Amino acid sequence: MTSRSERRALVVGTGLIGGSLGLALRAQGWRVSGWDLDETRAKAAVERGVLDAVGDDLGADVAFVATPVSTVAAVARRLLDDPGRRPDLVVTDVGGVKAPVVAVVDHPRFVGGHPMAGSEQLGLDGADPGLFAGAAWVLTPTPTTDLAAFERLRTVVTALGADVVVLPPEDHDRLVAVVSHVPHLVAATLVNAAADDAVHDAALLRLAAGGFRDMTRVAAGHPGIWPDVCTDNADAIVAAFDRVLAELGAMRDRVATGDREGLLGALRRASAARRQLPARGARPARLTELRIPVPDRQGVLAEITSLAGTLGANIYDIGIAHSAEAAQGILLLVVDAGDAGGLRDALADRGYHCTVQELS
Amino acid sequence: MTSRSERRALVVGTGLIGGSLGLALRAQGWRVSGWDLDETRAKAAVERGVLDAVGDDLGADVAFVATPVSTVAAVARRLLDDPGRRPDLVVTDVGGVKAPVVAVVDHPRFVGGHPMAGSEQLGLDGADPGLFAGAAWVLTPTPTTDLAAFERLRTVVTALGADVVVLPPEDHDRLVAVVSHVPHLVAATLVNAAADDAVHDAALLRLAAGGFRDMTRVAAGHPGIWPDVCTDNADAIVAAFDRVLAELGAMRDRVATGDREGLLGALRRASAARRQLPARGARPARLTELRIPVPDRQGVLAEITSLAGTLGANIYDIGIAHSAEAAQGILLLVVDAGDAGGLRDALADRGYHCTVQELS
Repeated sequence: MTSRSERRALVVGTGLIGGSLGLALRAQGWRVSGWDLDETRAKAAVERGVLDAVGDDLGADVAFVATPVSTVAAVARRLLDDPGRRPDLVVTDVGGVKAPVVAVVDHPRFVGGHPMAGSEQLGLDGADPGLFAGAAWVLTPTPTTDLAAFERLRTVVTALGADVVVLPPEDHDRLVAVVSHVPHLVAATLVNAAADDAVHDAALLRLAAGGFRDMTRVAAGHPGIWPDVCTDNADAIVAAFDRVLAELGAMRDRVATGDREGLLGALRRASAARRQLPARGARPARLTELRIPVPDRQGVLAEITSLAGTLGANIYDIGIAHSAEAAQGILLLVVDAGDAGGLRDALADRGYHCTVQELS
Repeated sequence: MTSRSERRALVVGTGLIGGSLGLALRAQGWRVSGWDLDETRAKAAVERGVLDAVGDDLGADVAFVATPVSTVAAVARRLLDDPGRRPDLVVTDVGGVKAPVVAVVDHPRFVGGHPMAGSEQLGLDGADPGLFAGAAWVLTPTPTTDLAAFERLRTVVTALGADVVVLPPEDHDRLVAVVSHVPHLVAATLVNAAADDAVHDAALLRLAAGGFRDMTRVAAGHPGIWPDVCTDNADAIVAAFDRVLAELGAMRDRVATGDREGLLGALRRASAARRQLPARGARPARLTELRIPVPDRQGVLAEITSLAGTLGANIYDIGIAHSAEAAQGILLLVVDAGDAGGLRDALADRGYHCTVQELS
């Protein structure tokens, strides 16, 4: 662990996310260097306190690539392949689709990342050091991910106040299609349908009450990122879209046929599910910590987090404690108390024998 | 005009809307009587200050029927047909679908109403005297509506802080299908799709960021009113749903075929339209008042407001000034300055010659 005064980070791309990252890291005492393709914006980033300096820093030990998705892989690869940099440099990105970039970069010290915050505003002007507080921040280790690199990145992200969610890249992409990509496209479609009608019915917009405004707020965001997102995650989006379209067709038919019971059932189910949606950053009342001695080798992390995912066990915190012997570490997993027993047994089946401790 | 101390209102049904109405009316000095099928709730309404007293008031000059939609017509008709009441009693309701109830009640002193506020909460506990401030409140006069009755109701509703929108009942139903009913059913469907996936992927709910929460908030509301709404407004909902489904299918195909330009175009259009959505209660910078001498007879109001609707002219305010001779009144319409000339010409074609005055 380096001392506080020595921590140095690189932020490439100083838009909303890169800018917020710079502010948040500097607030924690990091020295932050970086650049932007738009040199004017890079200079503005220094003026706004986002960067200590425009330019490279070969001594940085964490690099955040916050450039447009199409350029992330090339930038990340260039950083990782540069022999002049620290051999333990960990590189991450902030893009909304993970499997393609993780597959292309394919490096033990690249960990895909996706802070789920601030997508509706664009640009340095919206940069906010508190943007990540309480927000989900997905990290997507793979079987080749270096455990120590992952752990350093996770510590940094957690310190920014984010709620780290560990998922295989493909799972991330499938789930964000359901809770983000398809809803965004649906919101845009609802706005366009209303706008079409408003041409003939000026009163329509006056009837757009709070519910419609809430539903369509995301559609006001900058559309620029979406062609890339929809290209990179096309399969998952189409699959989720087709399921939603089928369910929408069923809902439409319930109205057309006067199926009052069917309507009531679907709406009751939705009301209950929406009320159960946990508040941002909410945790269950009872948590349990599993301490799992693991060999300090690639693949262990992905194996165990994927196993937890398969069992439906939500990982609320994750950490690694290294033992005196370099070859062995302790993986710490914090899960819902109700999931701990099943996960312990499944781990034992795979040769991992852990200790279990209830947290207060 | 009765003096302030004499104003007496009847509120039938003391749920969220009826309760809020009682509080708001009493805050303006009205004496409010009323009842609820649930006698416990009616008593609670008195305790909460919603009603002055549980019971009827034959001297009330305005009655708000805030009961479940299926009972509105019978309650309204009973009030209007009661020879013991004031002969100028005006009756209105607060339901979300207007054409069926207006057709069934079919009375010169019944004016359909729809305050577009607070649909997500249910019950007296959510009652709030400020619920209607700045909210759109649709009134749906017909060719048989009594002008004086309409005007008295409009004055009361405006005094509660609402933004009165005058529409034919069928237009109301068609427009709310687009901006309220279909979006609500879509929100419920998105929640159900996510809930289905969350059974297998506990992490999904942690990825449900602000956008998804905003989009689905309405789905948390009480489902009880929706079977009636969907039955009463089935045709308009199905028509709007089919258009939205067709546009959703097109959006899905843009993703499936990698049509980046098509996606960008649709999302740009939505972003621009959403940004142009006026803030709640917003008015254009320049307004013009039309003063239209009209015979004091049924049908004039519906004729002129429908004409404005046909021309796409948004009516921001409406009022009636009665002249000394009972047979003639002056209808005051406030519209966007850009719409005033066209409306004046169209009125002249129908024999209404108005004076036009720019408002500051």
